[in-house]
Amino acid sequence: MIAAGAFALVPHSHAQQPAPQQPPPLPAELASNLEKLRDAAMASDYAWKQLAHLTENIGPRLTGSPQADRAANYVAEQMRALGLDVKLEKVTVPHWVRGEERAELTVFPGQAQRTTQKIVLTALGNSAATPAEGVTAEVVVVNNFDELAALGHDKVSGRIVLFNEIYDKRMAEAGMAFQAYGEAVQYRVGGAIAAAKLGAVASLVRSVGDSDFRLPHTGQSLAATIPAAAVAAEDAQLLADLTKQGRVVMHLVLTPQTLPPATSYNVIADLKGTQNPEQVVIVSGHIDSWDLGTGAIDDGAGVVVAMQVANLCHQLGLHPARTIRVIAWMDEENGGSGSKQYTTDYKQDFANHVAAIESDSGAGHPLGFSAGASNAAATLLQPVMKALQPIGASQLEVTGGGEADTEGMAQAGVPVFGLIQDGRKYFHWHHTAADTLDKVDPRELAENSAAMAVMAYALADMPTRLPRQ
Amino acid sequence: MIAAGAFALVPHSHAQQPAPQQPPPLPAELASNLEKLRDAAMASDYAWKQLAHLTENIGPRLTGSPQADRAANYVAEQMRALGLDVKLEKVTVPHWVRGEERAELTVFPGQAQRTTQKIVLTALGNSAATPAEGVTAEVVVVNNFDELAALGHDKVSGRIVLFNEIYDKRMAEAGMAFQAYGEAVQYRVGGAIAAAKLGAVASLVRSVGDSDFRLPHTGQSLAATIPAAAVAAEDAQLLADLTKQGRVVMHLVLTPQTLPPATSYNVIADLKGTQNPEQVVIVSGHIDSWDLGTGAIDDGAGVVVAMQVANLCHQLGLHPARTIRVIAWMDEENGGSGSKQYTTDYKQDFANHVAAIESDSGAGHPLGFSAGASNAAATLLQPVMKALQPIGASQLEVTGGGEADTEGMAQAGVPVFGLIQDGRKYFHWHHTAADTLDKVDPRELAENSAAMAVMAYALADMPTRLPRQ
Repeated sequence: MIAAGAFALVPHSHAQQPAPQQPPPLPAELASNLEKLRDAAMASDYAWKQLAHLTENIGPRLTGSPQADRAANYVAEQMRALGLDVKLEKVTVPHWVRGEERAELTVFPGQAQRTTQKIVLTALGNSAATPAEGVTAEVVVVNNFDELAALGHDKVSGRIVLFNEIYDKRMAEAGMAFQAYGEAVQYRVGGAIAAAKLGAVASLVRSVGDSDFRLPHTGQSLAATIPAAAVAAEDAQLLADLTKQGRVVMHLVLTPQTLPPATSYNVIADLKGTQNPEQVVIVSGHIDSWDLGTGAIDDGAGVVVAMQVANLCHQLGLHPARTIRVIAWMDEENGGSGSKQYTTDYKQDFANHVAAIESDSGAGHPLGFSAGASNAAATLLQPVMKALQPIGASQLEVTGGGEADTEGMAQAGVPVFGLIQDGRKYFHWHHTAADTLDKVDPRELAENSAAMAVMAYALADMPTRLPRQ
Repeated sequence: MIAAGAFALVPHSHAQQPAPQQPPPLPAELASNLEKLRDAAMASDYAWKQLAHLTENIGPRLTGSPQADRAANYVAEQMRALGLDVKLEKVTVPHWVRGEERAELTVFPGQAQRTTQKIVLTALGNSAATPAEGVTAEVVVVNNFDELAALGHDKVSGRIVLFNEIYDKRMAEAGMAFQAYGEAVQYRVGGAIAAAKLGAVASLVRSVGDSDFRLPHTGQSLAATIPAAAVAAEDAQLLADLTKQGRVVMHLVLTPQTLPPATSYNVIADLKGTQNPEQVVIVSGHIDSWDLGTGAIDDGAGVVVAMQVANLCHQLGLHPARTIRVIAWMDEENGGSGSKQYTTDYKQDFANHVAAIESDSGAGHPLGFSAGASNAAATLLQPVMKALQPIGASQLEVTGGGEADTEGMAQAGVPVFGLIQDGRKYFHWHHTAADTLDKVDPRELAENSAAMAVMAYALADMPTRLPRQ
């Protein structure tokens, strides 16, 4: 995650608690199967090996890239090998390709003859390009949209604007990383449009995240007519400091290309239910990633955890009453065309969608699930959550939301669930070159697999179908 | 720090303790002045402002660059403004300039059609260049020199070698960062020569440091006939993982240039002693830095802490009996030509060098000093260290060494001191693009200034000159 503003961020804490009613106990066989799934998940390296393949053998999977398509095909092959009924369903996706990107300060206070200062940055998704030789313009720094508006057209026109909103590290360290992200990301998403309206020649944003390793964080920018890039936190600070002292001029080269839309695929793989095959429980993650890293935490982890649900059922010979549908979503990152296409194609069938789970908040230790579901549904799930107590993943918070790819279903009344992960480190690496395999702890990945498998299997095999709102 | 193998790393812990003798107390006025210096250092932002100027207004200061010369001139101007007797003394320095640098895997196991994997790397100082179009060769991974030797000429010739020695994070976290560095750095320093002997076409080393932010750490490589680069830890792991699975081919472009030696400068600034001006106490740091970051922790901090000693004396109207000599060394990083030149020019006068202090282990909280001095000297300094107890910098460890630039003096018998800093974070950023101003905590920088000022002033004003071994 997270696509631009498409989906409100879910506050994981301070959530409404389900009403304390006494739910019926699970049938003994189902309870036993949930424990078997949990323990098998903890003992298995299937998810880890799949994640290693996606990240190390396939690599970055930007929407429209050959790697993204290769990854979709790979997931399809792997699910077919487990006996699932697999379709690659066409999606028309944006096709933006990163180009050259570099910047330096050519004029700044205290500058010695002939010297420049390098600025570390990376283009935001959908950024327009500068001319091949770049643009050279004065830099103005603002902390928010109000300061930009106060400058007005005269002081913005012809300039490069930097939005220097600072990601709140302390909020993230205290367990509210997604809230910190939500506050800062609006400038990445909408900064270029706002700056362009006042005549800016390019829009920069301080990287949204808490790494202090001079690492720019990319992500979606709503299409603007001007080039848009994220600068490393250090470089944003440098620009803020130097512009306070005097005139700062930057030479900026960004040459991404927006190519014609491409054809790509969602992977839809069904483990058919034995009694109610028409009733569907979705487990999912998104197969596309940004292009700087190899998409381990965002969101290879989500995909392999969903794949692991099918693998564990196969390994344990479990056949749930309802269908478990593994989905690898395409294009969560750059517009959500995959999940939108699914909504278009399947909305007639949403009445048969029992629930949809997505993991798209990393691969940290899972604390449980956020639920866009009724309190009655949450009560019914209390015995299920008990099976996750031994791995510390038994929280169920009725917050109103799942993750981005399940939003279309949520709007249609389908109960949705998102894995709640320990997100304290997530924005260290989110959307950077450092989102790589080593950032995932094999044990924590197994815990996520256990949580996803237990929840999905319970939803697919409970005597009563989960009630809606 | 640290230049390549020129100077043995000093183990800061488990050091020999000075014999517990009763030293004479300090004269009351001196004791009072040390407290004034300490408190004034803690209250002053002079060092911080100078560091901001060196890093933000001047920037990276690689030996031979215009920024390095500008920085030397700047320090000279600032010391003249305080009334010191300042010389810019010529040094002939190496002049290596970074070029283009990029790499990708063109063949690897599980590769999809048309896809590559990017490898993040940076040239090591003194690296030779590839042809402009790069080299393409199979990668072999070894963990140490023994494994390289075991492969032999047949399996190394024509290949790109990666030395995958892993920096020991846990050792660093436990307070032994410099020892962890010492173990890993030998491959950065000598890897290219060893690989070239067996016919390798390029030599890569896993970055020496503990950042997990896909950040390559540069540093000196002893001149080899082949290109030499540091890959990010993540990329080293990728290469190790993929080469275990099958054949891996890399396309590598590195186009640095080794230009003719250049003329640069040490800054030598004397605050003349009132009674024994011929007797000299040196306070110093090195003004050059690697070129990726802006050289805040390595070693802008050391220079500004030395400058602060002169500033505090000026501010407090203190005039020590002996001369305090502020030195900003040129070229600690790429061969030590600055300190070697000083030894050549001044060795006749080393008998008059009372002591030499350098700060070159970052800007973390100071714990005290390492001393290349006699136990008798250490005993004499016990009352001085007492003045540093309130800031937690009162340790004096007779370890036999100072820092790299004082090595020539140490060999001639001059007592040398190095500031011992909390180094647990030092190798997060050491020799990377992320060595920037924000990595320095203003309060910790002030503590370092206090420690340097107290020690230097005491050495310059004690009734008895510090005894030698």
